Amino acid sequence: MALSILFLFLFNFILPSFSHPFDPLSPLEIQIVTSTIKSNFNLTSRLTFHYVGIHEPNKHDVLLWLANPRSSPLPRKAFVVARANKQTHEFLVSIADGHGMIVSQSVYRGSGFPTLTFEEQTEAIDLALKYPSVVSSMEKRGLNVSNVVGSVFTIGWFGQAHNETQRVVKVLFFYKESTVNVWVRPVEGVETVVDLDQMVVTDFQDVQRCVLPKSEGTDYRASSMQPPFAAETKPINVVQPLGPSFVVKGHTVSWANWDFHLSFDMRVGIIISTASIYDVDQRKKRQVLYQGSLSELFVPYQDPTEEWYYRTFMDAGEFGMGSAAVELEPHHDCPSNAVFFDAFHGGQDGNPVKLTNAYCMFEKYAGNIAWRHTESAIPGELIREVRRDVSLVIRTITVIGNYDYILDWEFKKCGSIKFAVSLTGIMEGKTTPHKHTSEIKEEIYGLLVAQNTIGINHDHFLTYYLDLDIDGQENSFVKGKLTSFKTDGSTPRKSYWSVVREEAKKELDARNLPTEPVELYIVNPNKETTIGNQVGYRLIPGPMPRSLLLEDDYPQRRGALCDHNVWITPYNRSEKWAGGMYVDRGRGDETLNIITQRNRDIWNKDIVLWHTIGFHHHPSQDEFPIMPTLSGGFELRPTNFFERNPILKMKAP
Amino acid sequence: MALSILFLFLFNFILPSFSHPFDPLSPLEIQIVTSTIKSNFNLTSRLTFHYVGIHEPNKHDVLLWLANPRSSPLPRKAFVVARANKQTHEFLVSIADGHGMIVSQSVYRGSGFPTLTFEEQTEAIDLALKYPSVVSSMEKRGLNVSNVVGSVFTIGWFGQAHNETQRVVKVLFFYKESTVNVWVRPVEGVETVVDLDQMVVTDFQDVQRCVLPKSEGTDYRASSMQPPFAAETKPINVVQPLGPSFVVKGHTVSWANWDFHLSFDMRVGIIISTASIYDVDQRKKRQVLYQGSLSELFVPYQDPTEEWYYRTFMDAGEFGMGSAAVELEPHHDCPSNAVFFDAFHGGQDGNPVKLTNAYCMFEKYAGNIAWRHTESAIPGELIREVRRDVSLVIRTITVIGNYDYILDWEFKKCGSIKFAVSLTGIMEGKTTPHKHTSEIKEEIYGLLVAQNTIGINHDHFLTYYLDLDIDGQENSFVKGKLTSFKTDGSTPRKSYWSVVREEAKKELDARNLPTEPVELYIVNPNKETTIGNQVGYRLIPGPMPRSLLLEDDYPQRRGALCDHNVWITPYNRSEKWAGGMYVDRGRGDETLNIITQRNRDIWNKDIVLWHTIGFHHHPSQDEFPIMPTLSGGFELRPTNFFERNPILKMKAP
Repeated sequence: MALSILFLFLFNFILPSFSHPFDPLSPLEIQIVTSTIKSNFNLTSRLTFHYVGIHEPNKHDVLLWLANPRSSPLPRKAFVVARANKQTHEFLVSIADGHGMIVSQSVYRGSGFPTLTFEEQTEAIDLALKYPSVVSSMEKRGLNVSNVVGSVFTIGWFGQAHNETQRVVKVLFFYKESTVNVWVRPVEGVETVVDLDQMVVTDFQDVQRCVLPKSEGTDYRASSMQPPFAAETKPINVVQPLGPSFVVKGHTVSWANWDFHLSFDMRVGIIISTASIYDVDQRKKRQVLYQGSLSELFVPYQDPTEEWYYRTFMDAGEFGMGSAAVELEPHHDCPSNAVFFDAFHGGQDGNPVKLTNAYCMFEKYAGNIAWRHTESAIPGELIREVRRDVSLVIRTITVIGNYDYILDWEFKKCGSIKFAVSLTGIMEGKTTPHKHTSEIKEEIYGLLVAQNTIGINHDHFLTYYLDLDIDGQENSFVKGKLTSFKTDGSTPRKSYWSVVREEAKKELDARNLPTEPVELYIVNPNKETTIGNQVGYRLIPGPMPRSLLLEDDYPQRRGALCDHNVWITPYNRSEKWAGGMYVDRGRGDETLNIITQRNRDIWNKDIVLWHTIGFHHHPSQDEFPIMPTLSGGFELRPTNFFERNPILKMKAP
Repeated sequence: MALSILFLFLFNFILPSFSHPFDPLSPLEIQIVTSTIKSNFNLTSRLTFHYVGIHEPNKHDVLLWLANPRSSPLPRKAFVVARANKQTHEFLVSIADGHGMIVSQSVYRGSGFPTLTFEEQTEAIDLALKYPSVVSSMEKRGLNVSNVVGSVFTIGWFGQAHNETQRVVKVLFFYKESTVNVWVRPVEGVETVVDLDQMVVTDFQDVQRCVLPKSEGTDYRASSMQPPFAAETKPINVVQPLGPSFVVKGHTVSWANWDFHLSFDMRVGIIISTASIYDVDQRKKRQVLYQGSLSELFVPYQDPTEEWYYRTFMDAGEFGMGSAAVELEPHHDCPSNAVFFDAFHGGQDGNPVKLTNAYCMFEKYAGNIAWRHTESAIPGELIREVRRDVSLVIRTITVIGNYDYILDWEFKKCGSIKFAVSLTGIMEGKTTPHKHTSEIKEEIYGLLVAQNTIGINHDHFLTYYLDLDIDGQENSFVKGKLTSFKTDGSTPRKSYWSVVREEAKKELDARNLPTEPVELYIVNPNKETTIGNQVGYRLIPGPMPRSLLLEDDYPQRRGALCDHNVWITPYNRSEKWAGGMYVDRGRGDETLNIITQRNRDIWNKDIVLWHTIGFHHHPSQDEFPIMPTLSGGFELRPTNFFERNPILKMKAP
């Protein structure tokens, strides 16, 4: 309790940026950490770094430190996952005075493997492209080998016993002649399996010769376009003559009534920590979110045939939403008033890798209204008050091969935090001999989107980790079930609905399916408004179609994060991964579904909200050869958090 | 078929604005029409005009005319609903050469009454405020009568027989002393019933003396605010140095690849007609939407007690979404690059009433991305293509007493039409003696949002009328049911989903509940893409919690538009009203639920899509005394309508 009170003063101090406990590792720190491991570790095979990031300090220590940031900085520690001797090694390395020290070291012996590195993917592709059988297969098809490109596909897990599961991937091939849109021109039938630890091709197949779809009309570069062009409109821009309103010190951001810490992680991308909002009526900062980020992204394709069945990707844990984030293009990826930030992560060799323009921050004014009213009930008076809706957006874009994920955090002055997920990029094409739907007699697991090209049905399920701390750590989860009631007949009305409060005492009580009308609250049961409502935030869920895989199917076991759209767990620093920590070839033994089976107490505890949103995607021609953005999102909205509308006293501009 | 082909040429001609068949009645036309009725109609009591609008011409005639707009204009006809002699009269009046002629005239003898006029509401309030018992009730409460304001409440229908149903409303009272936020200060316990035809008070009640909630902190005017103020941010604006890209000729709008006709109606507000999109690949305009608008808005409150049970409003049919549209404030209600338009409707006396800035049109750039991709699979090449998402918005804001509805149409270059519904304004407060939730032992049907004030639970259900004509009139509705399948075991994968096509042959087949995973298509079964997919649009539905009223409860019978989220009917010029045409005190005998029981053929017919979106609203303190905007929406998205992405060839700006 004392901690919570102290926490409130946190953001009144300007912190030296380098000392914030959640600051990502600096390039120098990355170097120190990986050098320490290299020099202290007996190598008999090569050592590859798969994750290098800040080791999250103990929450208690962070809150203590934040309450008194003039005290000495918290010790810096890094968590590292490396691969050597065909084993996954975990290290904890402390950093002090420019030196690193291995604090702990262990070998992970469970199922699954760490995130793939960019470098080993490149190496595997190079290897496969030079593999003699691949070369001869390409030549047999009359293809110019120098125009063949490769891509790494993780292969999931399908019931193999632990000792049968190797760290292998498939390398598949695409043809880039006449178009850069390689994804719609797979050289299907040829595939290689590469063992990433030994970096050797372990399997090769050339099972069938498929047609190569034509390249015409598939390129998406402006430079390759011929008239007629799509309709143009006149220039439009967002301008801020006095500059942006946000202030960034180190990794701490202040904007309007919000303060938060912003970090960037190899695995999940943007992490927002210790977000608090200034309550103008109470004249103090109030805690909202201790930490939040994307946790996992599950993409099961729905073609069960030999060539496609294994495509059941876990993009965060397998490819890294941070390390696969792409450089943002000013004026286009983010509007002209955006500010761009670089980020660093550890490369496979342990050296820091710079991501230029890894994320952007901008104020958004989409022409919307924060609140308004025109009053005509009062004779002789014209009353009209309108406030514009201006918000703060933090954007990152991650490209996993063919697909582009635009992920936005949006902070609103009314206290809401909105999350937007936008899907664009290129749908993976599967080749088919068919040029017209009339020729199709069999199940094609998708839609013919162009001649010889099927867009395969698939899903995107994104699970967010949201450690809300509403006015303190001890929070609870309440479902407000909208329930029909019959009246007693004392008026002509026969029915009404009311909200039946259901308190989630245990983890299994909290799980939710999005089919029933329910309001979902995270409340602080120890804190009431002056008129007695529990302070809280409400989750307005995103789209969440249920998964349609069978419960005992392997992808569904690994991707059990989509069994429900809401889960609550007690805070546990080591529980961050909705699909488990080691998801490449993992067996789903650490998913939210498994974690919550312990059915721990969650009432009046430090709890974490996990929210899964999803998209079923049955492709259409209009999405070929590149896909107009499809968006969804969700909102955390203050609900009896404030005594009254927190932007009532917003001045008109 | 010939018609459809002709239609395609339609927008290549510039039409003289005055002659378009869908143009709203001009002020002169309104005057001619109502004068004609007045002079031809034998009056024994007063005549009040409740609806004056264009009589929609026969679709066949419109399409013929549009195919050859140089031919003589279609005859102009007006449809008028008036009240006289306690009867509802319907008139069809032709207008030619500056003269009107009554073409047909009838008395409506079914259930329900026409839309209330603004003038009769004012008159009823004035009458009630001067009613001696009201004055003395106010004085008994120590209230200054000159500070009391009134508001008209429609009272629904609760099983009364036809001859028992009078055209009466309740006038309720609110106190404006010290605050203009009258809605949170009801003078509860006092109510009057006013007969609108006779314009007399027919009933009066002073059942209980309730507490009057305090005014402090309820005013929302900037001028009444004291520091501290909510956090401010620096100026931000949308600028278009070369002006907007849309061209408006009369009521015809061209923007980017879109052309459509824009009208404004007393009852439903914005009507978009004959919207077509230019297909850059086919180099021609293609039909999308023959006509679309909001049809009805049902707002049942969930307090069944004597004072509140009847509050089950049908805002479009009872109050008029067009006639209750408010003047938009430049720079605030719409961004600075918006263009504003006036509209006219017929007043109660038949004279035209001008609505200044009734709607606005602006190009929107919210910083979003239309499509993008970064390609890293091709060694040595950096490929990044990003296109910004700029759209066209048409906005109108309707205020029904306390609530403000912001209704946007958004046209996107990718072919999507998006609909946004935003709720703001003031929640109706119910008084209570309670100042703290701990005092509440009984069901309060809502939440204590301030001392002595309950925000009452309620819903908003909005049904849109969408007469899609995808590449012609004959269309069909198809549900693509996402269905789980077991595999044959030939691969390790056990399951997948696929789309099972279900064709809706009859009206009852088409009704949909939003609980199952399904894709909803309007297709043209006579038209395929070159590779054989049926051209169509997909409805991405909005939020739609099911109604929680009992099926046989009177409000649910009147508001049966919320029984399903999708309905399909064969086009019928007279079927425009999801809740029926005469909804004030109506018995629900013309709702979509009733209409569709005829179970007409809808396959390969000229069909209409009706879509209902809804919000359950359990209030919170953060929404008091004025509500931060809550938004929802839906999308019509081209699905195999184009051969490929229609904005592939959009130039980078």
